[in-house]
Formats: sequence, structure tokens, C-alpha cells
Amino acid sequence: MNKHALYHKSDSLYGFAVADDTVELRLRAARGDLSHVELIYGPKHSFSLRRHTAPMTLSSSDALFDYFTIRLKLDDKRLAYMFYLTAADGKKYYFSEDGATEDYDIATSFYNFFQLAYINPNDVMRGVDWLSRAVVYQIFVDRFCRGGTDGDGVVNLEWGGKPTPKSFAGGDLYGVAKKLDYLCDLGVNTLYLTPIFTSRSNHKYDISDYYNVDPHFGGNKAFGELMNECKARGVRVVLDAVFNHCSEDLKEFRDVCEKGRKSPYHGFFVINGDKPTKRPLNYEVFAECDYMPKWNTANPEVQEYLCRVGEYWIKNYGIDGWRLDVSDEVSHGFWRAFRSRVKAFGNDVVLIGENWHDSRSYLRGDQFDSIMNYAFTKAMLDYFVTGALDTAGLCDKLNELLMRNMTQVNNMMLNLIDCHDTHRFYTQCGCDKGKLLNALAVETFMPGATMVYYGTEIPLEGGYDPDSRRCFDWNADGAFAQKVKKLLGYKKLRALAEGGARFYGENGLFVVERKANGQTATLLVNNTKDKLTARGQTVSADGHAVIVE
Amino acid sequence: MNKHALYHKSDSLYGFAVADDTVELRLRAARGDLSHVELIYGPKHSFSLRRHTAPMTLSSSDALFDYFTIRLKLDDKRLAYMFYLTAADGKKYYFSEDGATEDYDIATSFYNFFQLAYINPNDVMRGVDWLSRAVVYQIFVDRFCRGGTDGDGVVNLEWGGKPTPKSFAGGDLYGVAKKLDYLCDLGVNTLYLTPIFTSRSNHKYDISDYYNVDPHFGGNKAFGELMNECKARGVRVVLDAVFNHCSEDLKEFRDVCEKGRKSPYHGFFVINGDKPTKRPLNYEVFAECDYMPKWNTANPEVQEYLCRVGEYWIKNYGIDGWRLDVSDEVSHGFWRAFRSRVKAFGNDVVLIGENWHDSRSYLRGDQFDSIMNYAFTKAMLDYFVTGALDTAGLCDKLNELLMRNMTQVNNMMLNLIDCHDTHRFYTQCGCDKGKLLNALAVETFMPGATMVYYGTEIPLEGGYDPDSRRCFDWNADGAFAQKVKKLLGYKKLRALAEGGARFYGENGLFVVERKANGQTATLLVNNTKDKLTARGQTVSADGHAVIVE
Repeated sequence: MNKHALYHKSDSLYGFAVADDTVELRLRAARGDLSHVELIYGPKHSFSLRRHTAPMTLSSSDALFDYFTIRLKLDDKRLAYMFYLTAADGKKYYFSEDGATEDYDIATSFYNFFQLAYINPNDVMRGVDWLSRAVVYQIFVDRFCRGGTDGDGVVNLEWGGKPTPKSFAGGDLYGVAKKLDYLCDLGVNTLYLTPIFTSRSNHKYDISDYYNVDPHFGGNKAFGELMNECKARGVRVVLDAVFNHCSEDLKEFRDVCEKGRKSPYHGFFVINGDKPTKRPLNYEVFAECDYMPKWNTANPEVQEYLCRVGEYWIKNYGIDGWRLDVSDEVSHGFWRAFRSRVKAFGNDVVLIGENWHDSRSYLRGDQFDSIMNYAFTKAMLDYFVTGALDTAGLCDKLNELLMRNMTQVNNMMLNLIDCHDTHRFYTQCGCDKGKLLNALAVETFMPGATMVYYGTEIPLEGGYDPDSRRCFDWNADGAFAQKVKKLLGYKKLRALAEGGARFYGENGLFVVERKANGQTATLLVNNTKDKLTARGQTVSADGHAVIVE
Repeated sequence: MNKHALYHKSDSLYGFAVADDTVELRLRAARGDLSHVELIYGPKHSFSLRRHTAPMTLSSSDALFDYFTIRLKLDDKRLAYMFYLTAADGKKYYFSEDGATEDYDIATSFYNFFQLAYINPNDVMRGVDWLSRAVVYQIFVDRFCRGGTDGDGVVNLEWGGKPTPKSFAGGDLYGVAKKLDYLCDLGVNTLYLTPIFTSRSNHKYDISDYYNVDPHFGGNKAFGELMNECKARGVRVVLDAVFNHCSEDLKEFRDVCEKGRKSPYHGFFVINGDKPTKRPLNYEVFAECDYMPKWNTANPEVQEYLCRVGEYWIKNYGIDGWRLDVSDEVSHGFWRAFRSRVKAFGNDVVLIGENWHDSRSYLRGDQFDSIMNYAFTKAMLDYFVTGALDTAGLCDKLNELLMRNMTQVNNMMLNLIDCHDTHRFYTQCGCDKGKLLNALAVETFMPGATMVYYGTEIPLEGGYDPDSRRCFDWNADGAFAQKVKKLLGYKKLRALAEGGARFYGENGLFVVERKANGQTATLLVNNTKDKLTARGQTVSADGHAVIVE
């Protein structure tokens, strides 16, 4: 047995409450090392006197590890436990905070058992059901559809022309509203709009007024009307919270430029000096963009400012959540405050971080509900585009990703294959519609929400920014969209609404199996140039099939 | 190379800020597997363009693993990084979020490098210097010294008699004040008093009035006087915050007993029904003690109630911190609120949890500063009492414990060999004064604070509660206390104030080496029945020596 591979920590994604009286425990071991795992458990204050045992299930594996799991409903919410391992060679070990040992002294177990000391309901990470079932359509507003505002006079790009970083194409929120029926027909039930607040840019990630929708997009009036149309159709709306930085046009930043340390807003930013200067750059900014000063989110006044923004659009317009821009560079302390303010409106208002990396430190129940699942994006590229992953490798990778977070978080992840910050997947895979559809199929079958970047259904081509932000082609033929629609329709299956996913290879096909609520839905994906058959289904080259039972 | 053994997660105790511009990174590998580790690092937003390398240091090992560490001072506080490993067989690997790989594609590194995305100063865990230098004397007030209140008439135990769970011996806060000079002379600079607030018991862990010191102990007047005497001597005072539960005598609980759900305090407790009943027990309690109803610390009103208690004794009496009783069963959300309220008085006010287990989820900078180090207690018992650990095993175990938390936390741990909740160490080791002194010596040399349970210096005997709470014998001869005093005096050495510790065996001796601020202090411990020699020092059986250079 590879002792180095064993891993469990309590009060982490290896041991956590899923409800007020139910916990989930995970144990990691080297793949193939253990033939059986039992949980030994009992009430914390009398563990040396009373204990039960229950078998754990080998529920998934990745390239290196097997993961054994169990869910326990507790009478006493003060759980002490340890593991009893049977290795493949028959040897048996106890596994406690003191590691794997052949003997174990129960009399001193209070020093080294594992524990979930008590389930406090306010600490439980709660799932948001609608997010698990969401088909999220991401709209870069300037490029989706013109609705008549003509971009408030800034339009400089003919619709369909090649965008530059400075292009304004005149898409607006009236345009979005006009296309809501189209989107609903496609299977979309949630919109995620890139920033809509006042800003001099086309992307509006440099906000100068957090309380007014940009006139380019139709202002607050257009947004109010869009929200009404969305509510009438049961479509949810998630906005982009750009809280890492703002625009140099923001009135508070301008005040600091004018008054330096005498401005009450000097501490709102991170300035090494009296007044901000660009050469040399003496204040912190997003990336290397001097027109985007960084908010000092460690400052309680800034926290209050941004919390109020977060509340305003929920309270006055009824938005359903915030996607959090560059959220990994913003203070944990701020996100905790922000969560408590936002969740006061109901747990259904969601918080989705733009974290590209392993984000377990943000996903413990005190900060975000989930993140944009860029690790999934990378896996799709590695399987369908570069071939860095074969079918077995993809199974391993997806299982590994599901073991980065609590189950509730997995069921809320915002899965994506591309967005405004990447190349378009369609272009990445050489404009192969079969591959694009296959990647979307895998995304649809992943636990969590399914995000579709606007235009994917046409499909729209595009390299890196600004090319990934082309105008939607409303004259495109709808043949591919019908296929996307069929795919997104599976999102309504009970089997896809919750529960885990099994990934495996069969007869050369990549298989995803979802099982929940008495239903099994199986996706068969053919990532080869040959016709393949499994389960009595023939799947064409670069095609897929779905079996619902 | 054992790939299963490799471990690193960013924004965790494997990667964390130690100051506003400095981070510490740790990498774990199987012991002996790697001959060299380099860190490859650069600014997050341009990692694919600009990178540096720096060698990491093999800084400690435990039974299974080697730990490589590095501290980096950053110009750009947005750090991307990965590791470049050279295995003992000469093979080289990159180690990123995608694991150990022979090749690595830098062009897509933004998907899978490790990162510390930004150092927000409010998220940095700050060390508290005085706690690292503290010699903490734990006093069970009823048994330490009578000061003249005569226990407000409840005394039923002759001083020195055998205590029962119901004994009152009449120790009080005037008694503590009377002995302050004695304690200062012993080398004590901090008092930790078990609970002092109004309560019908001798231990006072069942509090009925959080705003009044029990008359048994002399009331608020006695406490005010004690605080004055302590301030005059530079002695700090930590009180016991019993926030997991209270007494059934608490006025709010009595109100619920009377009015049931009509009481505004029903939600302050966890009651399954209208009024609390004992048979059957329908409310949650501490352990199985029906006279100690559990606070519902998930309730914001309770959080406010207890935060105000926490503030009151800091603001009005200037206490230096709280030891947090049964802190692992109290809500994380509450502790976050409590920390922000308490730390508003200054970072020097400390929070020390009574968590017996691995507590990394409480020690990330948002909750406690440290915990009572019961895992250290267990190691001392295993080495000096049961022999479950030999010298090499002790080195491994102590290194393992130091890798459970951030360095700042290690330097604030409240180390102990016994307390009111354990058998006395002296009794555990068969009343062997050499062993007791040796264990105290190791404790003194451990990073963090050194806690001495009252009477250890006499030394006092005692089995489990109530026997571990015997009356201090003020007629004991002072010979042993002189030895303890000498030991505690080492706590003033610069070398012991900060920095790591090296543990190793040499010529049969167990060695602890502390090095900081240009000074090296080495402790040689002889846990055998033979005279042993190292570094030109002969150490007697069950004795120890200290070398300061």
C-alpha cells in the first residue's frame, strides 16, 4: 500500500456537511491499492465507548488515485470517525490523524480521530437548484443584436465587420430583449451579460458608474424592460460584477487625481504616492492597463461601496446573481462580506467567480457558490483539439476535477468550452462542427450549469480577443442551431439535475453516465474518424448519441 | 519518484502570504525522492513571457515526506508559479495544477500554473509577537490560592483535600493577585484563567452571567484589581470564552423554560419543541450535560450577544485575549464575526481555540490565531510516557505537526503537556521529575507559547478530572520550581522568539535546535536511563542540557 497516497482532512472538501444532518466523507488512496474501506464512526464525546462501521464506496478514480466516499445521516451532529483499510494484499490498517497504523489505541482516540465536530447550519454550503439546471447564454452585448439605440452615437463598426479593441457595433439591451424568444426556443433559461454599466469601452470592464447602465446599451430603462421580459419567460439574469478594478473615469478616482491624499477616496485605490501618475505608473491596476485602477478591496469603505452596488441591482431589478470578474485578485474578506449581503436576499441569488485555477479556498460556503470551470475548458481542448488527453485520460481528468470541490459546488459549476476571454472553441478545433457539438454534449452532461457563448449555435468563428467578439450573424442558417437545441434539451432530464457523473471508455467511445431520480442518461461520444458501436447504438465519426432509460 | 506523494495547493498552508509583499511556498514529496527543487515564477498576467527560477530548500522531513520551502519577496503581488523537480534518479518533472509531467506547454500555462493571485493585506495572517514569547500559566481559580473571599460561603473542601466534581476550595482572584510576584519570579508573563464568570459550579464552564465575575472569586472588583496588578507587572491575561454552551441558569434560557416559543430567546438555543425538557432531553447541550444548553451560534442575535461579551472585557478591563472553549463545535461564521470585532481593538488581542484536532480550517487568518496544541501533548506522552515514539519518530511527528499550519500560526500555538482536561503529565509519567522537566524543556523549545498548568512547578500530582484539579500546595519545597524557572528563562532567548525548529537525534539524545536573530539555542534531551554525551556536553539519564551560541 502506498501510504504516501492516503489523504483525508476533515472540515474540507474531503469531509463536509451536505445538509443540516448529513455529511459526505471522501478518502483518497493510490489507484488499485485498497480492496475495501470501512468507516468507523460514533458521537465525538463518547467515541471510545460507542462506534459503528459502514462500508465506503469506490466512487471514482483518476490517473493516480481511487476515491472512496460515503454519506451519513447523523442523529448526533458531533461526528468522530476514522477509516479501516484493507489493502489489496489483505493487510489491514487504521487511518486516523496519525496516519496509517496497524494498531490503534481507542483509549486515546480523542487525540487523533478525525472529526466533524458539529454541523452549524450557517456553515453548510447550500446548493442552488436552478443553477444545476441552468443553460446559461453568455452575451457580449455590443455584438449580439442591435435593438435601436444605435449605440448612443458611438457605433464605428458595420454589423459583421472585423472587430478591433476599439470597435462599437451597436448591440444593446433592446436587442437582447428582441431575441429572448429565439433564446428560449434554443433551450436557454439564463442570461449572463458581460458588463452593462457606464464605461467608455465596448467591453465595459472599466466601469465609471456602477448605478447606471451605459446609454450605449439603452440605459437603465432598457435594462428594466429586459428584466421584465426575462421574468415573463422565467429566464434568469446574471450580471458581471467588476469589483477588482474600475475605470479611471470613476468619479472617486478622478477626485483622487485632483486632490491626492486630501481626497476621501485616496484609500479606495492602491496608490504609492499622493496623486496617481501613469509614467511611472504609481498605482495598482488590472493586468497592465493603466486606465483600470485596482479597487482596494481590503478597505472597509470600498467593501461597503461595492456591497451596496451588489444589493442595488438585486433589490431594484431582481437580478439572479453576479459573475465576479477577476475574483481571485479580490480580498477573501470582501467576498465573505459580499456573500452575506447578497445571500440576505435569498440563497437563490448566485455568486460565480471568474477563477481560472483550483479555487477550493473560495468555495467553502463562505464566499462563492461556484466558478467558471476553465479547468473543464482545458480538458475539452486537450481531448478534442490537441489530443493531449486520450479517452482514458479524459475520464481521469474529469474525475480529478470533481474531486477538487464539494459535491454541492460541482453541481453549481459554470461549465464552458469558450467565452469572450478565449479563442472560440469552434475555431480552435479547425471549424469542425462535429467536434464542437461533441464538446457541447460533454459540457451538457457535466454536473453543473451549461454555458453557451453567444453565437456558438451558428456557429460563429473567432480567434483571441477581439476576434472572439464578432457580431452575431442573424442571417446564418439555423441547421446547426437545431442540433445545439436538441443537445441543450437534455438539460431538462431528471438524471442531469443532480448526482454524480461516471466517465468511462467503451468500444472506443467516451461515455458519460448520469443517474438521478430513477433515471439514467448516457452520452456516447465518438472522437474518432471511424464509425463506432456500443449499447446497440452506432455513433458516426465525430458524432454522439444519447440513451435515456 | 512517487507521484502520489507530491502535494501543493495554493492559497492554503502550502502557499500563503507572511507579509504584504512576501509569500511562503511549500512543496511536499516522498522522503528521499527529490534531489533538487526549483521554483519557476513570474507575474500572473505575463507568466508565459517572463519567468524567474529560484532553488527551494529541503527544510524538514517526517516519516513519509520531505518538505521543500521558499520565501519570496514580490514586486508584483500577483504570483504565478510552478515547480521543477529533479528526482533522485536524475529525471526531471514539471509540477503544476495538472500534476507532474515531463513536458509542459507554457503557452497554455494560464490554465494550470499555480498562483497566489494577489496579496490583499486584510487576508494576511498576522503573527502576534508577544504570544510567540509567552510563558502562559493556566490557573484553575478555585484551587490556586485563597485570597480572603472564602469563596462567598460555598467552600466545602479543606485546602489540600481530595477534590470531587462538587468541591469548592475557596481559591479566588485576590489569591491570584497575591501570588503574582511569585509567578513573575518563576518566569511567567501571561495568565490564562479558566472561566471566572458567574456560575454555580467550581469550574464555571456553565456560565449564567457573562458580565459579572463570580462572587466566589471576588466579583468584578477582584478582577479589576488583578488586572491592575498584572498591568503593573507587564503580565498579560487571557480569559476563557465559553461560547459553545451556557448554564441552564442563564436568564435567557430560563425565559425559554418559562415561555417556550413565545420567548424572544427560543432561537438562542437548539430546542426540538416548545419548552426545554430534560427527560427526554429535547435540546442540544455540551457533551451529555443537560445543565449546559448549547448556544445556537448560527443565530445572528446570539452572535451579537457573544461578540458584545467579547468586546466588554477587552474594552473595560483590558484583557489580552480569549481562549475559546469547545471552539470546534461553534460556527465558523460566528468565529469570523468574533475575530473582526475583537481584532478591532488591535491585532495583539489573541484568540486561541480549544481544538484538539487538526484545525487548518480555523487557522487561515479569518478565525483563530492558534489553538491549544494537544497534538503536541500526545507526542510528549508518546515519547516520554508510552514509548510509542522513539527519538526518530518524535522528530518526524513534530515536523509533521509544524506542516499542519502556516509558519505564523506555528509561532502562536499554545503548547501544553497537560491541563485541567487531562491527567497531569507528572502523574502520567510515574512521578518522574526528570521526565516532567524534559517534557517541559521540549515544550519551551517548541515554536509558540509555552503553557504551564498551575502546580506543575511543585510538582502537583493528579489523574483525570477532578483529580487533576487539586489545591496548590503552598508549603511544597521550592527545589523543583527552581528548575522550572531556569527552563522558562530560556524563553527570553532571541533564538526562541521566532523562526523554525530543527529536530534530530544525536548520540541517543533528542535535539531541538532553534536559530533566529543571529543566535542558536540547542536543547539536548536524554530520554534514556544512561548518561549520554554530545557536543562536549554530558547529559544525565532523564536529564537535559541547553547550549546557547
